[in-house]
Amino acid sequence: MRAVLDVALQQLAKVGFERLSIPEVADLAGVNKTSIYRRWPSKAELVRDALDAAMNHAEQAPDTGELRGDLVELARNVASFAQSPAGAAIVRIMHAEGGNSELRALGNRAYREASKLGPWVVLNRAQARGELNSDANFSLVLFTIAGAIMHRVFVEQRDVPDEFLEQLVDLVLFGAVGKR
Amino acid sequence: MRAVLDVALQQLAKVGFERLSIPEVADLAGVNKTSIYRRWPSKAELVRDALDAAMNHAEQAPDTGELRGDLVELARNVASFAQSPAGAAIVRIMHAEGGNSELRALGNRAYREASKLGPWVVLNRAQARGELNSDANFSLVLFTIAGAIMHRVFVEQRDVPDEFLEQLVDLVLFGAVGKR
Repeated sequence: MRAVLDVALQQLAKVGFERLSIPEVADLAGVNKTSIYRRWPSKAELVRDALDAAMNHAEQAPDTGELRGDLVELARNVASFAQSPAGAAIVRIMHAEGGNSELRALGNRAYREASKLGPWVVLNRAQARGELNSDANFSLVLFTIAGAIMHRVFVEQRDVPDEFLEQLVDLVLFGAVGKR
Repeated sequence: MRAVLDVALQQLAKVGFERLSIPEVADLAGVNKTSIYRRWPSKAELVRDALDAAMNHAEQAPDTGELRGDLVELARNVASFAQSPAGAAIVRIMHAEGGNSELRALGNRAYREASKLGPWVVLNRAQARGELNSDANFSLVLFTIAGAIMHRVFVEQRDVPDEFLEQLVDLVLFGAVGKR
């Protein structure tokens, strides 16, 4: 049933939850719709499993030996995720379906799963090496990087070259002014 | 017809473009639907004017005398915008309606209009005062602040207290490490 989950995810990214149609998913995946309904009685259950399957490639925390290199790696992962069908589907759900709280919960759950992959390990390691102050605000650092990348992909609709990721990480590490 | 535009914007934020219904807008605004169709022959035209009307409160560039204070003011404007019906509608359009390029163009146009309000004036002034390096990347600074606030409002769905805005501006100005 892997094909069904893949197609469900693609359709979710393409048409959104409201217009996602199980008969259409069955058609595109080449299976009978009753076999979908047998396994996933509701659209929400199908979407939950499709998101879970997409998230289910446990990434390692990058370990380049220094914080800047690790953050550029993490930023690259965020950019790949944001540009993938799974990422687009999840971001779409979180922004668009404000009225459907069940669906929002699914999107947030998948996003949290995706966000667990390594970032905190990286920042803890950097702190242990003395590269970050003891009072560094980890979630501010990570969500600022993630937010800037999502703005670039979804609002500006621009590519995300390595040069951009390096400039972004330098901004967050060293600041636009560069002295305190 | 101001009431029609207000209602159109609220409905846009609430149900999205696809399900926005002109008869329903007419009903809620207390006007006859034929008078809406006379003025706005298509839904896209109505939405364009509703977004324009919402953007049409030319804000001044903040001028506190120093960059940090100006950026906190700007960040506060972004946060208010993101939390307003107009902001929610525009962000929703930009993320959700990937398939409808006419609508995306409307959303992007409105967002660009909203983004013109002061930021570049603020950064140019700071550069003239010597507060920013001559090679500062203005759009990186501004979009990083905007992206972090949008992440907070739409992804984390959290409040945006002044304390958060000040921490964010300090991160972007001085960095998490604070030295080069």
